[in-house]
Amino acid sequence: MYLKNLSIVNFKNYEQAELDFSPKINCFVGLNGSGKTNLLDAVHYLSFCKSFFNPIDSQNIRHGEEYFVIQGLFFKNEAEENIYCGMKMNQKKQFKRNKKEYSRLADHIGLIPLVMISPEDSFLISEGSEDRRRFVDSVISQYDREYLEDLIIYNRILQHRNKLLKEFANSGTYDEDSLELWNDQLIAPGKKIHEKRKQFIEQLIPVFQKYYEYISSGNESVSLTYQSHLENEDFKTLLSSSLRKDMILQYTTVGTHKDDLIFTVNNFPLKKSGSQGQQKTFLLALKLAQFDFIKNINNLNPLLLLDDIFDKLDAIRVSKLLALVSENHFGQIFITDTNLERTEQILSKLTIDYQVFNVTKGAIA
Amino acid sequence: MYLKNLSIVNFKNYEQAELDFSPKINCFVGLNGSGKTNLLDAVHYLSFCKSFFNPIDSQNIRHGEEYFVIQGLFFKNEAEENIYCGMKMNQKKQFKRNKKEYSRLADHIGLIPLVMISPEDSFLISEGSEDRRRFVDSVISQYDREYLEDLIIYNRILQHRNKLLKEFANSGTYDEDSLELWNDQLIAPGKKIHEKRKQFIEQLIPVFQKYYEYISSGNESVSLTYQSHLENEDFKTLLSSSLRKDMILQYTTVGTHKDDLIFTVNNFPLKKSGSQGQQKTFLLALKLAQFDFIKNINNLNPLLLLDDIFDKLDAIRVSKLLALVSENHFGQIFITDTNLERTEQILSKLTIDYQVFNVTKGAIA
Repeated sequence: MYLKNLSIVNFKNYEQAELDFSPKINCFVGLNGSGKTNLLDAVHYLSFCKSFFNPIDSQNIRHGEEYFVIQGLFFKNEAEENIYCGMKMNQKKQFKRNKKEYSRLADHIGLIPLVMISPEDSFLISEGSEDRRRFVDSVISQYDREYLEDLIIYNRILQHRNKLLKEFANSGTYDEDSLELWNDQLIAPGKKIHEKRKQFIEQLIPVFQKYYEYISSGNESVSLTYQSHLENEDFKTLLSSSLRKDMILQYTTVGTHKDDLIFTVNNFPLKKSGSQGQQKTFLLALKLAQFDFIKNINNLNPLLLLDDIFDKLDAIRVSKLLALVSENHFGQIFITDTNLERTEQILSKLTIDYQVFNVTKGAIA
Repeated sequence: MYLKNLSIVNFKNYEQAELDFSPKINCFVGLNGSGKTNLLDAVHYLSFCKSFFNPIDSQNIRHGEEYFVIQGLFFKNEAEENIYCGMKMNQKKQFKRNKKEYSRLADHIGLIPLVMISPEDSFLISEGSEDRRRFVDSVISQYDREYLEDLIIYNRILQHRNKLLKEFANSGTYDEDSLELWNDQLIAPGKKIHEKRKQFIEQLIPVFQKYYEYISSGNESVSLTYQSHLENEDFKTLLSSSLRKDMILQYTTVGTHKDDLIFTVNNFPLKKSGSQGQQKTFLLALKLAQFDFIKNINNLNPLLLLDDIFDKLDAIRVSKLLALVSENHFGQIFITDTNLERTEQILSKLTIDYQVFNVTKGAIA
């Protein structure tokens, strides 16, 4: 699968642009503020029906305009797919596949698999466990609809249980039967969520390790571990043994809503002990492992978007990374860089089709 | 003023290292994870008695060791200053100037003025107003002790006032006299804080603008504005007109604790509309303006630490920045970079003394 042609009108800093792409490597080169990343974001819209950066669609309309349009012509399984995304101020976003409008945007998700690697990924290291759970959940949900439903049910029951704990505290009462009712309903989806996260991460780890070792030339060792209360104990037992604590704190202190991913470098926490380059390499390996996972599920190469990928990496890691992505293992790739000279120098060494686009303040040459 | 010699033992990934510096430009070059930024952090310790990155001193001891020592030999006003920082596990940090131990670390702050520019600065854009107030407060506090005291008093009175508002709500009562008592005590320091922030930012703006325009070649326009409730109205009037709202929300909704700095690019919010390169340029210009400010206050060139400064900037901005810092306007500078070739190429064009240190896994050549 690849994106053959992209056409945008009034999207972010672009008035109008049309681009024909190479099925392999496409590189957007330009000065700061020229709009390189905005082109990646247009491609992201065509896959996920939304911006990678700004969740408010209307703010992605070019300043002073009333609408934007993004259109992509994809080749997939030897057929054309025309994807249209239109957004008018104060109106619902329109999404069409081959001129037929989707009734639900969710029906489109999955048609154009895509992995975006961006400096923004650093929140996976710097922020709390909630962001790491959301990363895991978003990947699993892409291929397992039941998982998403279990998540929704789990969170709803959890809210009920927490509300009941608060009522106990406020009224000074305790009603075992009511609590058991919520416990029973929490346990089933909780166990399924735990099992699926565990399976997913177990499959991810060896691929992640392989990528990290390759890019870093085995210079340091890293690990990725799934941490969950449910790992060593039965959820039912956990809930009853934490009852006293839950009553005092007035919320549920155990369960899959406390799961986390633990990242280390040379056996120390990555956040505190990893250098900026090591953290960047870690995120790269993690997202490339995600790429492999989605590729296997779909039996199709996702689009790979690499935003500002050369940042913070030393020259050895950059060349390793590029050797990697130019292999046949990957499909179509979009890269942004500020440095034309560096880009040309690196790409010309690869024996693979590539195209460079010079981006200047919302115009492309 | 400049740092002539640095000696470190068991600091972060260094077992032992000793470096002699150029009074002008010093560049640490090395692969990812080699320990370039840790050298900057050692210099930061000698100025601020703490790490720029990790506030827990004991975590900056090399893994498996029991202590670290950082020593710096400075030349300042034609005299030598020997600064010693020693940290033993489970003991108080020791700080000495010319072999004499400080009784309070606060007495050392200001002796070695220093400005650090780091990728971490991006929190000034991405995070809430509290972080921007802390930036402003930390600069003003460096030269105005009274300001720091006013801040402490203001925050204490604010807590009392908020507590009283909660008591009103819980007991369903209202006591005008008690509230007036806190109001009166809040107004005096509040007005002084506002005046000093205003003065500081008014002085900062033209310098900031000059730097931004120079680095970006005037490619886009940016602005920096001080936003405060006290700007257009008297604090006393504000407090009485927001009384109803304060009572409902049970905290003080107006005052200098709600001040903010507003950042824009081409008249749109920098956070949403600025590209990564524009945001980086903005932070650079802001910190360079801070440099000028501290330089003028001290009548002395602060040390300038530039961590990963070439990241995200296009080639034009990088060369502008380096032309700038190699002027006589700046004093001693420390730079980190992953790319030896790029560094040599850029520095060799400058007609200024520089030294390059090759950093390899905690060793320096």
